[in-house]
Amino acid sequence: MTVSRGPDGGTLPVRGPVLVVGSGLLGTSVGLALRRAGVEVWLADRDPAVVAAAAARGAGVAYDGGGAPALVVVAVPPAAAGTALLEQLRRHPDATVTDVTSVKARPLAAIAGAPDHARRTVGGHPMAGREVSGPDGARVDLLDDRVWVLTPLPDTDPDRLQQVRDLVVTCGAVPVQMSPESHDRAVALTSHAPQVLSSLLAARLADADPRYVQVSGQGLRDVTRIAASDPLLWTEILGANSAPVADVLDAVAADLDGVRAALRALSAEDGDGSARETVTDALQRGNDGRARVPGKHGGGAADYAVVPVMLADEPGQLALLFTAAGEAGFNLEDVRIDHVLGRPSGLVELSVRPESGPPLVAALRGLGFDVRA
Amino acid sequence: MTVSRGPDGGTLPVRGPVLVVGSGLLGTSVGLALRRAGVEVWLADRDPAVVAAAAARGAGVAYDGGGAPALVVVAVPPAAAGTALLEQLRRHPDATVTDVTSVKARPLAAIAGAPDHARRTVGGHPMAGREVSGPDGARVDLLDDRVWVLTPLPDTDPDRLQQVRDLVVTCGAVPVQMSPESHDRAVALTSHAPQVLSSLLAARLADADPRYVQVSGQGLRDVTRIAASDPLLWTEILGANSAPVADVLDAVAADLDGVRAALRALSAEDGDGSARETVTDALQRGNDGRARVPGKHGGGAADYAVVPVMLADEPGQLALLFTAAGEAGFNLEDVRIDHVLGRPSGLVELSVRPESGPPLVAALRGLGFDVRA
Repeated sequence: MTVSRGPDGGTLPVRGPVLVVGSGLLGTSVGLALRRAGVEVWLADRDPAVVAAAAARGAGVAYDGGGAPALVVVAVPPAAAGTALLEQLRRHPDATVTDVTSVKARPLAAIAGAPDHARRTVGGHPMAGREVSGPDGARVDLLDDRVWVLTPLPDTDPDRLQQVRDLVVTCGAVPVQMSPESHDRAVALTSHAPQVLSSLLAARLADADPRYVQVSGQGLRDVTRIAASDPLLWTEILGANSAPVADVLDAVAADLDGVRAALRALSAEDGDGSARETVTDALQRGNDGRARVPGKHGGGAADYAVVPVMLADEPGQLALLFTAAGEAGFNLEDVRIDHVLGRPSGLVELSVRPESGPPLVAALRGLGFDVRA
Repeated sequence: MTVSRGPDGGTLPVRGPVLVVGSGLLGTSVGLALRRAGVEVWLADRDPAVVAAAAARGAGVAYDGGGAPALVVVAVPPAAAGTALLEQLRRHPDATVTDVTSVKARPLAAIAGAPDHARRTVGGHPMAGREVSGPDGARVDLLDDRVWVLTPLPDTDPDRLQQVRDLVVTCGAVPVQMSPESHDRAVALTSHAPQVLSSLLAARLADADPRYVQVSGQGLRDVTRIAASDPLLWTEILGANSAPVADVLDAVAADLDGVRAALRALSAEDGDGSARETVTDALQRGNDGRARVPGKHGGGAADYAVVPVMLADEPGQLALLFTAAGEAGFNLEDVRIDHVLGRPSGLVELSVRPESGPPLVAALRGLGFDVRA
């Protein structure tokens, strides 16, 4: 995916002033990115201390309520987004208004029925979460190269849509357009249903025999990682997108019923070939789906070359490896380490762009690393 | 978890000769670890070329069929393990026999009913998988510090059990004892059911709108990673442990029914507080279960301090960070990197032993790193 960024790609930045309502992680990061491109940014938040912190980071100046923004970015928590959008549309009758909320159909529902509001409204959802929150977690490059979904309404004015596309590109992100309903089905599939399944699996561990939990490996750690997410925040998200999430979970439940029946048949040893086939087929379709999961960002999983390196059981090997890769001019897209407690040895998987795979293998071998490619 | 390793911990190594039947990844790694401790190792495999490769790696000498081993380690694929155990018990009437198969009750079932066989048999399952296979993937330290489950039978002779415990310790691993049935319930919970759920979720992506799949993040990548596993191998594993896996999946399905019904209620907007509570409760129990997932090895997840460092968008920052941590004397237990395509910046999470957390934060800050702890 090639991006022509505002600041260095020659594209003109979005026209300001831009009013950012909500100076949390995303709002402040949007402000930082816009300021990088020289756009005038006004900051608002219910909490003046938060505005002050965002302004101190260089994300813009505190909004005094006086001027008329060309564009308003609503960056408040999901439950408040619908109300905040309406409020900004009323307060700034000439402004284009967008938001950055992770669910789209519900907050936009009240607006879709009011043409004067709808023509100035473009829903948005930048795919750039962070484990941290607040203006202190913001980064000027948080949105660079990220997908930013835009969900115009049927009545949205094309010029207003272009204005928000300019905002996205100015922030360094990649606009992807779909309907609010399609967006919500997409995140139900790729984010919300995975959250539920990870949580339900992890919940099985809560009361398990401690010796059972001891017998676990990297697979369990990966599958249950997002089960550590905030239950109240996620209740909000799932509640706001409940029907699309339930649709995905219904389909998973139907497949799960089939696999459970097949396992029972195999267990009773009256399982014929068809029970075995049901299991294999489910696993095979899992392979097919997994192959479609994008890599670190944007491209397909196959967009990276993975170079496995076995590190010796000596301190400092990891640092040597990264230094060697860096000095040879390779950008690492991802790193996976599989090793055991208290020892620096183990298998390290370096992900690089495909064209960098063979030369990285050669370079590391030349330096004496045990490359297992 | 403290381990007294054979070679450096003063424990006497297991008495040899040890015959390793099956010179694949695990068999060859066992051979390498035993040779490290000076134990005599004989190697066997259906394929003479595989034996030759394992012997060339230094894992032992090819077995000529003449001598009587003190201990036999059966390291063949799961479907062949039961037959191979019986065959070795018959062929070597004085030897203790163990295996390294990932399912325990079924391969041991035929033996449990024959007391003369049962008293010499100890099932085993070292928790040390690798993505690779064959003797070339073997490592002398593959088993170091790993949990190695031992499943004696009711008739197993205590001296024979001790002999296999000596084997485990000599290989550098940590013996954990449970019944074959408990072992199978443990791996159903921590490995087999997660595999099914990861595959079923990934399967939903197989036919999805390509634009939907584009809208995905690290969570989906983590949850679906093991969905890339080999369908035929996993059909064998799930088939051999079908009842315990079905038990776990039944419990997940029951919880899933509850969450689906709650989401439908919320969607119809007739959801009262109880529907919301059902969702929150499922997520909260997921939190509880996730907190019990061990870290890299053995200890609980809380056994590590996680130090988040924000790297600047400049080449070589990752190498600088690892060099700095290494030179300051810190062993990194795990590394997570969250960044985007083609840029070396991003949030890096370094996991270290808890006591190393505060000094690592101080050391990195002293070197000018942007530590977000």
